[in-house]
Amino acid sequence: MKVAFTSDNIAGASESVFQAIIEASQGDAMPYGNDESTALVTHKLSELFECEVEVFLVSTGTAANVLSISALTPPWGSVLCHKESHLLQDENTAPEFYAGGARFVGIEGENAKIDPEWLKKAVTQKIGDVHSCQPAAVSISQVTEVGSVYSLEEIRAVTSVAKEAGLPVHMDGARFANALVSLGCTPAQMTWKAGVDIVSFGATKNGTMASEAIVVFKQPLEEKGLSFDRVVKELAFRRKRGGHLHSKMRLLSAQMIAYLTDDLWLTNASHANAMMAHLQEGLKSIPGVKINTPAQANMLFCTLPLPMIDHLHSEGFAFYGGRWEEGVVRLVTSFRTPKEGVDAFIHAAKSFAERTV
Amino acid sequence: MKVAFTSDNIAGASESVFQAIIEASQGDAMPYGNDESTALVTHKLSELFECEVEVFLVSTGTAANVLSISALTPPWGSVLCHKESHLLQDENTAPEFYAGGARFVGIEGENAKIDPEWLKKAVTQKIGDVHSCQPAAVSISQVTEVGSVYSLEEIRAVTSVAKEAGLPVHMDGARFANALVSLGCTPAQMTWKAGVDIVSFGATKNGTMASEAIVVFKQPLEEKGLSFDRVVKELAFRRKRGGHLHSKMRLLSAQMIAYLTDDLWLTNASHANAMMAHLQEGLKSIPGVKINTPAQANMLFCTLPLPMIDHLHSEGFAFYGGRWEEGVVRLVTSFRTPKEGVDAFIHAAKSFAERTV
Amino acid sequence: MKVAFTSDNIAGASESVFQAIIEASQGDAMPYGNDESTALVTHKLSELFECEVEVFLVSTGTAANVLSISALTPPWGSVLCHKESHLLQDENTAPEFYAGGARFVGIEGENAKIDPEWLKKAVTQKIGDVHSCQPAAVSISQVTEVGSVYSLEEIRAVTSVAKEAGLPVHMDGARFANALVSLGCTPAQMTWKAGVDIVSFGATKNGTMASEAIVVFKQPLEEKGLSFDRVVKELAFRRKRGGHLHSKMRLLSAQMIAYLTDDLWLTNASHANAMMAHLQEGLKSIPGVKINTPAQANMLFCTLPLPMIDHLHSEGFAFYGGRWEEGVVRLVTSFRTPKEGVDAFIHAAKSFAERTV
Amino acid sequence: MKVAFTSDNIAGASESVFQAIIEASQGDAMPYGNDESTALVTHKLSELFECEVEVFLVSTGTAANVLSISALTPPWGSVLCHKESHLLQDENTAPEFYAGGARFVGIEGENAKIDPEWLKKAVTQKIGDVHSCQPAAVSISQVTEVGSVYSLEEIRAVTSVAKEAGLPVHMDGARFANALVSLGCTPAQMTWKAGVDIVSFGATKNGTMASEAIVVFKQPLEEKGLSFDRVVKELAFRRKRGGHLHSKMRLLSAQMIAYLTDDLWLTNASHANAMMAHLQEGLKSIPGVKINTPAQANMLFCTLPLPMIDHLHSEGFAFYGGRWEEGVVRLVTSFRTPKEGVDAFIHAAKSFAERTV
Repeated sequence: MKVAFTSDNIAGASESVFQAIIEASQGDAMPYGNDESTALVTHKLSELFECEVEVFLVSTGTAANVLSISALTPPWGSVLCHKESHLLQDENTAPEFYAGGARFVGIEGENAKIDPEWLKKAVTQKIGDVHSCQPAAVSISQVTEVGSVYSLEEIRAVTSVAKEAGLPVHMDGARFANALVSLGCTPAQMTWKAGVDIVSFGATKNGTMASEAIVVFKQPLEEKGLSFDRVVKELAFRRKRGGHLHSKMRLLSAQMIAYLTDDLWLTNASHANAMMAHLQEGLKSIPGVKINTPAQANMLFCTLPLPMIDHLHSEGFAFYGGRWEEGVVRLVTSFRTPKEGVDAFIHAAKSFAERTV
Repeated sequence: MKVAFTSDNIAGASESVFQAIIEASQGDAMPYGNDESTALVTHKLSELFECEVEVFLVSTGTAANVLSISALTPPWGSVLCHKESHLLQDENTAPEFYAGGARFVGIEGENAKIDPEWLKKAVTQKIGDVHSCQPAAVSISQVTEVGSVYSLEEIRAVTSVAKEAGLPVHMDGARFANALVSLGCTPAQMTWKAGVDIVSFGATKNGTMASEAIVVFKQPLEEKGLSFDRVVKELAFRRKRGGHLHSKMRLLSAQMIAYLTDDLWLTNASHANAMMAHLQEGLKSIPGVKINTPAQANMLFCTLPLPMIDHLHSEGFAFYGGRWEEGVVRLVTSFRTPKEGVDAFIHAAKSFAERTV
Repeated sequence: MKVAFTSDNIAGASESVFQAIIEASQGDAMPYGNDESTALVTHKLSELFECEVEVFLVSTGTAANVLSISALTPPWGSVLCHKESHLLQDENTAPEFYAGGARFVGIEGENAKIDPEWLKKAVTQKIGDVHSCQPAAVSISQVTEVGSVYSLEEIRAVTSVAKEAGLPVHMDGARFANALVSLGCTPAQMTWKAGVDIVSFGATKNGTMASEAIVVFKQPLEEKGLSFDRVVKELAFRRKRGGHLHSKMRLLSAQMIAYLTDDLWLTNASHANAMMAHLQEGLKSIPGVKINTPAQANMLFCTLPLPMIDHLHSEGFAFYGGRWEEGVVRLVTSFRTPKEGVDAFIHAAKSFAERTV
Repeated sequence: MKVAFTSDNIAGASESVFQAIIEASQGDAMPYGNDESTALVTHKLSELFECEVEVFLVSTGTAANVLSISALTPPWGSVLCHKESHLLQDENTAPEFYAGGARFVGIEGENAKIDPEWLKKAVTQKIGDVHSCQPAAVSISQVTEVGSVYSLEEIRAVTSVAKEAGLPVHMDGARFANALVSLGCTPAQMTWKAGVDIVSFGATKNGTMASEAIVVFKQPLEEKGLSFDRVVKELAFRRKRGGHLHSKMRLLSAQMIAYLTDDLWLTNASHANAMMAHLQEGLKSIPGVKINTPAQANMLFCTLPLPMIDHLHSEGFAFYGGRWEEGVVRLVTSFRTPKEGVDAFIHAAKSFAERTV
């Protein structure tokens, strides 16, 4: 294939990441996270987020999300997330499994962002009614599943509804870096300062092979009267119980350290976002192409004429289509997407459009 | 520390393994196991086991064990395993979690091996009685949790009871290679030819960083009238549901391929076993030292005088004690254990013993 | 209160039912359903449904529903039911609990009936995709949660989509008798002859104190290639596992026998339906009253002016309001609703309306 | 049959109980426990236990036990109960189901009573170790599964170990009244004054058809720093989630009220215990009969010569045998066991023994 816009999980790792894996593979180290590199990860993330945090490394984004939430809800609770969220659309029944059979309720909202008004209704209905599951947590995705990004105001609008109701807020940050670069703010601003209690801090889609950090913030939890210590304890035992406690934890830690070193994570995300901006700019002016949700990070949903899709596929460009409404395709750029590849894609689409007019 | 006998999970990876990781980190590849290297793993394991297999790669031994079993039991079933097995002793409640609340019943037997007579009683009691959980699967550990190894006859004695009762058999092979080298037989002989239906084929303790393969055998399952296709389907969905489906699966595949190439896995296990044999030989003759279970692979439980334990720890030797009966310590060798380290340990123990007589 | 339209579960039991309880309370009988009266229930229901059935008695409608479904779906499955169904709205997370964390997906449709077109979409999407839960069963409510009744054609439209997809169909028949009387057909016609595989045959809302039967039909299951024996086995063990196997089962059996004897169940339902028809007829012509969903059985959702609601409450009439859109109230009649009570309600509403014009 | 010693669950209900059911079946009442009779049950049990309690009525003993425990343990916890307890022997996997996959660990001890020394070991091992499930609750049975009764001192020996470890204690009181009569103490003395936090207060085996009360005590929970309010909240939601919230709750309440009125419960238990004492006394002196565990309440395990068992069965006496060691039978008396039946049994056994010498 010429260039693939299938997903950001098709790219391998940044060089410094696999160099770190090599180093981590040498010599002895205590297992299960009782090694120095794992302690260093916590230290680095505490600095990054400018506050006290507890960190739990796991190897998949699904594990990070569902473990986080499992520590926040009783089995008779409901977790409120957008109806198009990854949690509800792409993780099979992992959410219900980890949350002990709690319910995941899809909330409405434009561009896959939770509408605070809908949320308000959801968190105030049937409270105390034993016949109804009880709102227990809120989860937002940053970047969202359609490529949009919550502004800080939008995050706060959601978290303030949650706070009013005494509910903790989880952020699915599988594309955390891409969102951060898009907003141009600090990690603290996008999370705990905006009312987020726990984050799935993703790295796998942006330069590592398999390393995700669950980051728990003390301050916002305790402001709501929730116990930081209890959440941390739940996560420690539930990670093991889920089979997600790596014996050679340094494999995960080493990747995360390299990812955070010398701003690799921001550099990678900036590149991916820039490539998407370039791609979107090029596509916008092509007749017959419709931008469904303006890409604010590194993912775009747009609608193409069916013959154009076929043509692009036949030219060797890879991307997903056929899963959504007719003609809808998803294009994702990564830290490794070459500018020439983007140019080639735009060129191919444009010339096809011109030929068929 | 001078040398550590803490566990085989403290050693890093063999060189060819991390070289393979580097290669795997380059370029694009389809996610979730739809890449060429993952297909190659299945091919290689099929050759290794000389039969049709389905393979599911995961990153921890706990995940391999509990996912395997989750495909074999209904939630009202019981899984029969040795009362000192890893499943019952060291995986928190991961077994119950994945098996939907099934029960894990500890069976008696010498040297942490299931006694076929006890098993027979367990699989014939209260069958059809709704007040009692119903035997659904048997799980054995090879190497066992105390360092012993089932002979082929011993495996068959267990699996024939299971077969009589129509129950599938799982083998926890976290130290599969060490057991195989100890027995000097083929992988097929130690598994499906001996009546085993599904294996957790461990690699993490013997040269990789994080790669374990669930291997499902078609023939023995179907001989019992159980559906291979159903087990495979359950595993596919349950792996995702458990958060254990890696997007960049090639990270796991690459390690497994390197592990199986040029007999690395056997070479590594042979070294670990040889070091243990040497260590055991040396300890046997030291006054005050008692071998609790003769090591047949790379793990030894023995009882040392308490002052000797303190002395060895103070000399910088690392190993676990204080968790079992007074004076009981566990010594584990790995593919990286240096012969000089073993000699030094024996020497230290022996001179201490001589001094204190 | 003058008369209560709160729910049909506020009424006690028919006289022959509690006479039967007295008789059942005498003497010894084998426990756990191994008594003669329980066998008789199966016999009677087999006759009633004109086919081979297996029956499991339980004491609540929630138990009947969620146990039924638990036997039909794997934990990675999805159960398709109307988004306003009792399962999704009024049973807390009992559905997820019993189904081992499977997902309950709300389907659209007018009058709380599943739209077959929506269903078709739902059962054909993402089949085989491990990232998505897999359609495993369909559940319909007859009477629905808003008081409408599926016609036989409407049932078949749903079940034929299910059959095409190989999925079993459950019917929540908490108000089975009311629906049957409304349709004027036979129990067989409304269930297995229309493609339904398993029914929660409710009696508690229509004359008993606590007795519900899960009725499993052999023929439709086997026509889909599903195993009747497996479903029956699952139910036997899961009923015990859920704590729903009564030791003195005859308490449940006796009620069910009385319920089915001399057409008590049909007589009771006919009365309840007739009272609702009378009530609806009376309300229809009152200015300011809006019928939201025409009542086809014994439950009506209508919208009243707020002052009228207050007035009726102050006059001592009991009914639920304040839970739905503004002004929406629910009125339910039962086998014990007196005609004078209905007349009084209509009169009170009408005179209030006239006074306030 | 002449007379049955099969179980106390084969007897029907006391007359005042079914009279109460008739009364409860009349008229309207608010559902789900919002009726007057349910409030009265709480009031009566509060008086009975001389303290503040919360009460949850359910219809089976299994439900009472497993719901109680589900409110006390996280899913990664272990519940410590005797290895021969009903929880581990006769409730299928209901315990694991309700406790979200927690583990039930069998503790040793004579006469099916937990040995405090064994318990102490169990509650202090591997605390804080993520690889091991963490002790979360203790459950004792009073009467035990073999017919013995904990003395107050024995209860306190268990509860003081639990209190030291900060663990709540559940009492399975399926035969609460029989134990109480045996000890001759007050309900308060046998429960919260002895350190018990929550009781399954059984009535079904002793005069009702189906009514069991979960009784939660405030004081002992709070003395351990555990939250009474949280336990109560969990129970409210979990009862509904388990399908155990009866709509016509008055059916359960009415039985319980009658049971507690005019000391019916004590009268019934006294009769059952007296019949057992008489039976045991008679059997003791018969050659070939061995009392295995001296009956302290209404259940006896003894060993009879096999021909004697056959003879008694052929004479029409009903009782369980063939489930335990050879010759072991279980004899249970109830509130309805006639003295002539006991005499006849003794006589038949004795004459058989004399004939065969």
